[in-house]
Amino acid sequence: MDQEQAQPTRREFLSMVGAVGGAALMYQAMAMMGVAKASSYNGPIQLGQAPEGTKVLILGAGLAGMVAAMELRDVGYEVEVLEYREKAGGRCWTLRSGDTYEELGGAVQQIDFAEGNYFNPGPWRIPYNHYGVLDYCARLAVELEPFIQINNNAYLHSASAFDGRPIRYREINTDYRGHIAELLSKVTDQGALDEVMTDEDKERLLTSLRSFGALNSDNEYVASGSASARRGYERYPGGGVDGAPIPNDPMDLSTVLESGLWRSLASAESLNTSMPMFQPRGGMDMIARAMEENLNGLIRYNKKVTSILQDDDGVTVTFEDGENGGASGTATADYCVCTIPFSILGQIEHNFSSSLSSVISTMHYASSVKVGLEFNRRFWEEDEHIFGGITYTDLPISMISYPSNDYFQKKPGVLLGAYSWGATSYQFSSLPHEERVAKALEYGAQIHPQYNEEFKTGVSVAWHRVPWVLGCYGLWQDKEAQYQDAVAMDRRVVMAGEHLSYLPAWMEGAILSSLDAITRLHDVATNN
Amino acid sequence: MDQEQAQPTRREFLSMVGAVGGAALMYQAMAMMGVAKASSYNGPIQLGQAPEGTKVLILGAGLAGMVAAMELRDVGYEVEVLEYREKAGGRCWTLRSGDTYEELGGAVQQIDFAEGNYFNPGPWRIPYNHYGVLDYCARLAVELEPFIQINNNAYLHSASAFDGRPIRYREINTDYRGHIAELLSKVTDQGALDEVMTDEDKERLLTSLRSFGALNSDNEYVASGSASARRGYERYPGGGVDGAPIPNDPMDLSTVLESGLWRSLASAESLNTSMPMFQPRGGMDMIARAMEENLNGLIRYNKKVTSILQDDDGVTVTFEDGENGGASGTATADYCVCTIPFSILGQIEHNFSSSLSSVISTMHYASSVKVGLEFNRRFWEEDEHIFGGITYTDLPISMISYPSNDYFQKKPGVLLGAYSWGATSYQFSSLPHEERVAKALEYGAQIHPQYNEEFKTGVSVAWHRVPWVLGCYGLWQDKEAQYQDAVAMDRRVVMAGEHLSYLPAWMEGAILSSLDAITRLHDVATNN
Repeated sequence: MDQEQAQPTRREFLSMVGAVGGAALMYQAMAMMGVAKASSYNGPIQLGQAPEGTKVLILGAGLAGMVAAMELRDVGYEVEVLEYREKAGGRCWTLRSGDTYEELGGAVQQIDFAEGNYFNPGPWRIPYNHYGVLDYCARLAVELEPFIQINNNAYLHSASAFDGRPIRYREINTDYRGHIAELLSKVTDQGALDEVMTDEDKERLLTSLRSFGALNSDNEYVASGSASARRGYERYPGGGVDGAPIPNDPMDLSTVLESGLWRSLASAESLNTSMPMFQPRGGMDMIARAMEENLNGLIRYNKKVTSILQDDDGVTVTFEDGENGGASGTATADYCVCTIPFSILGQIEHNFSSSLSSVISTMHYASSVKVGLEFNRRFWEEDEHIFGGITYTDLPISMISYPSNDYFQKKPGVLLGAYSWGATSYQFSSLPHEERVAKALEYGAQIHPQYNEEFKTGVSVAWHRVPWVLGCYGLWQDKEAQYQDAVAMDRRVVMAGEHLSYLPAWMEGAILSSLDAITRLHDVATNN
Repeated sequence: MDQEQAQPTRREFLSMVGAVGGAALMYQAMAMMGVAKASSYNGPIQLGQAPEGTKVLILGAGLAGMVAAMELRDVGYEVEVLEYREKAGGRCWTLRSGDTYEELGGAVQQIDFAEGNYFNPGPWRIPYNHYGVLDYCARLAVELEPFIQINNNAYLHSASAFDGRPIRYREINTDYRGHIAELLSKVTDQGALDEVMTDEDKERLLTSLRSFGALNSDNEYVASGSASARRGYERYPGGGVDGAPIPNDPMDLSTVLESGLWRSLASAESLNTSMPMFQPRGGMDMIARAMEENLNGLIRYNKKVTSILQDDDGVTVTFEDGENGGASGTATADYCVCTIPFSILGQIEHNFSSSLSSVISTMHYASSVKVGLEFNRRFWEEDEHIFGGITYTDLPISMISYPSNDYFQKKPGVLLGAYSWGATSYQFSSLPHEERVAKALEYGAQIHPQYNEEFKTGVSVAWHRVPWVLGCYGLWQDKEAQYQDAVAMDRRVVMAGEHLSYLPAWMEGAILSSLDAITRLHDVATNN
C-alpha cells in the first residue's frame, strides 16, 4: 500500500459508508463520530415479545404510566391501568373554559377563558433535546409549534433597580457583554494575560471580543452604530428623509451590575431552556390525550389505590372505586409499574422492601404556584411588541411568560402571570384563589400597567395543594445514596416517573424513567 | 403640600393616567417614559384627504409600490400601478412547484418541489421590530409563524478547524463564554481592575461571571454539571438505573480561538436577527399576494417602463406593453412614485434633476446568490435534531438554513443551501444552474453527509442576474453625501424602496421609505 496515500476525509469516509451501507449505517457512523447523540433517549424501545399470558398492572395514567402501558401492550403484555382522576395525563394538564379544578381544602375554580385559550399548570415547554417526548409526539401525531423561550424584547425587572422600570432584555444583555468584553480587552492590552496566552491567541481574543461585545475599533464599548444595532437606538433606522439612525447611550457597567438584572442573562443557555423549544398546538395535554386515545379502553378511571401488596405469585392492588360509590375493588397482575408520586405512595399500604420504603417516606415534593391571567387585549404584543418569551423579575411572581401562539390576534390572551417556588410560593398558596390572582395582578402591574385595565379572568394552581400529587416534583433527601434503591425492581414492582430520573420535573424524565423501568421489568418477566 | 408626601411610583402614575384617560393615553405615557418606542414605524399612516381629482402613477409593484398604492388610494387619490413582471411582489418572492424562473442570459429553471414546499429567494424572515411589515401583515390578515434564527443545536463549521467536523453552536458558545468569564474573573482577583472598579462592583462582577460563564465556585471553567448543562454531556441525564449524567470536557480557549468559530457567536444579537423572528405561513410572497389582492385591479402587469418625463403639468411614462405585443403605451398622472431599482432606472430615459440623476447612475447593486435544496428526507431533524435555525460555515455557501415550518413531518424539506455575497457569489453565478446546485451540494455534504443520499431537486437565484433588479439591494457610492438628494421629491416624482432607507435589503426599509415618500408627495399635492 502506498505510504503516501491520504487518509480519507471525514466526508469521504462517510460517503463510503453511505455507499456501502445506506443512510442508516451512515447515521450510525456519524453517531460514533460524535455528531448525533445528544440525549439519553435511544429511539423507539425494542423489548421483544412478552412471555405468554403475562399481565402488568400500571398505577397512574400520567406520561410514565401511559408510555409503559403502550409499550408493554405493543409487545403482548396484558395491561391494565388504574388512574385516580377522571382523566389521564397527570401533571401534563391543561385548563380550558368549562374545566373545574378542586384544590386540597375544597376550593373550586371554574375556568372561564375565551374560546381556544388555555393554561398549562404543569409542563409548558419541550426542549429540542427531549427526544423522548418529541418522538412520542411524532408517533402519536401531536402537532408541535415553537415555544419562544428567549425574547430580546421582553423585560428584565427588579423592584429595586431603575426605579422599578422594566428594561428590555437586549439592553442589559448587550451592555453586559459589551462591558465585560471591554474590560477583558483592556487588561489583555495591559499585559495581564501575557503569561497565560500566546501573542497569537491574544490577538484572536481581542478580535473575538470586538465581535462578541460590539466594541469599536479601539476595543471600547460606547455609543455606536454597532452597539445600537443590538441594544436599540435613540432614533431607529428608517426610510426617507429622517431615515438615518441615531445611536443611544449604553448604561455604564456599575449600573448594570448594581441592578442585578444580569442574573437572567443565562436563562436560555441551558439545554433544558435553549432555543428551539416546542409546545403542542392547543395545550400541553394534547400529548396526554393522544396517549389516552392510543390506549383506547385500557385505563380505568376514578380508582384510588389503597394498597399494593406482592408475593411470589403476583401483585394485588386494592382501590376505592369512584365509579362504584367508593366501594373497594381489587386488581391483580404478575407485575406492576407504579408511577404514583412518592408523596402519595407514602400514604398507601404496601409491602415494598425496606430500602425502597425508606426512599418513599423521605422524598419531599417541591412546592410551587402558577397563576394564569387572561386579558381582554394582547397589550404585550400591541403596545410593547413582545411576542412570546419571558420577562424575569425579582418580584414574588418571578416571571411573566407570554403566549407562544395566536400572535397578532385581536382576541384575549392568557399569560403565565406568576411562577413561584418554595417559600415564595406560600405567599400565594396561603391565600384564597381570588386573592392569589389579585396578588399576581398587583405585582405584574408594576411591569405592565395595562394589567389594571385589561384583566379578564385568572386561574391559580398551588402544586403542593393538588390532591393527586401534593407537589410539583420529587426532592431527594440524598439522591446519590438513595437513587439505585428507588429505581431497582422490587421483586414484582418497579417504580417510574420524573422523580426517578435525572430530568426531574420534566416530561422527558418521566418517559425515560418509564422506558428504563419496563426494560428491567421485561427482563425479569422473560427470565422468570 | 406635605413635604413628606411620596412621589407616585411609576405604576401609580400610569394607573392615574389610565383611570383618567384610558388605555390609549396610558400607552402614550408609557411611550414617553421610554417603554414602547422601538421602531421608526409610527403606526398606520394618517395622510388626510387627497386633493380632488389627483392621480398618482406608481412604478413597480413591489412592497414599496403597493404600500404607496394602497395608502394613496385609501385617501382618495386616483392610482395606477405599472409593473414589469406578470405578477406583483418584486423581491418579496416565493418559488413553488410549477413556477418558472428565467435568468439574464435565458437560462430557465422549472421548479419541482414537493406539494407545499417553497423557497424564498429574497426576504425570508421578519424581525420582531420591523413593525411596519408586521402591521401590514396584521391588517391584511397574513398569517405569521415563528422563524427560528438561533438554534443552539445547529452547527458552526470551518473547513480548517476540527478536521472539518461541524461543532454544535452550544459547545462553542458555552466554551467561549466560560473561558472569557474565567479570564476576567482571574484578573479581577489578581487586582487588575482595582483602579477602575469599587470592591462592591468587583464582587458583583465575579458573581455575575459565575452565572454568565457557568463557572464553578472557584471561578473556573472546567468540566462540571453546570457547564455540561449548557454545552452537552458525555452521558446525558436520563431516567432509571443509568440516569445520572456524566459531564464532558470543554475545549480549551486556544482551540476555540484558533477555530475562528466564535465569529458567528453574535449572529443573533442584532435587532435585525434576534429572536423572535417571523415568516408568513406558506412563503414570503403571501405578503405580496395579500397586497396585490387588496389592490384589486389597480396593477397593470407586463409593462416595461422606457421613459419617465415630467413638466409643470404632470408626469408622462411610456412603456412597452407585454400584453400588446410590445407596443408602446403611455400613462400620465399628476405625480409619480418611482420604486424602480436604480440599477434598472439608470437605463431608462428620464428628466430628473442632475443631483438625483447622479445618485441613480452611481448606485451599484449588491451581488448575491441563494441556492435552495430539496431533500427527500428531513435528515437534519431526524438524524441531527436540528429544528430550524442556521448553521454557519466559512465555505462559500456561508450558511445552511433549516426550514422553520413542517417540523417533524415525514416529507421532503427545502433548505437554504447557500447564501453567498459579493465576490464569493460569482463562484456560483458564473456557472450554469445545475452546476451551482452541484457546488452547493458538494460544500454542504462536508457538514451533512446525508446530502449525497437524500438530494431531490434544487433552485438557484443569482440576484445580480435577475432581470428586473440586477442585484439584491442598493449600495451607495457615498450615502452620507447623496442620501438627501435621492429621497427629496424631484418636482412631481418621488423615489421609494429599500435603497432609500437605512434598512437596506429589508422589506421594512421599502415600507418605511414608501410611507415617507407618500407623506411628502401628499404635502406637495395638497399645497399646490
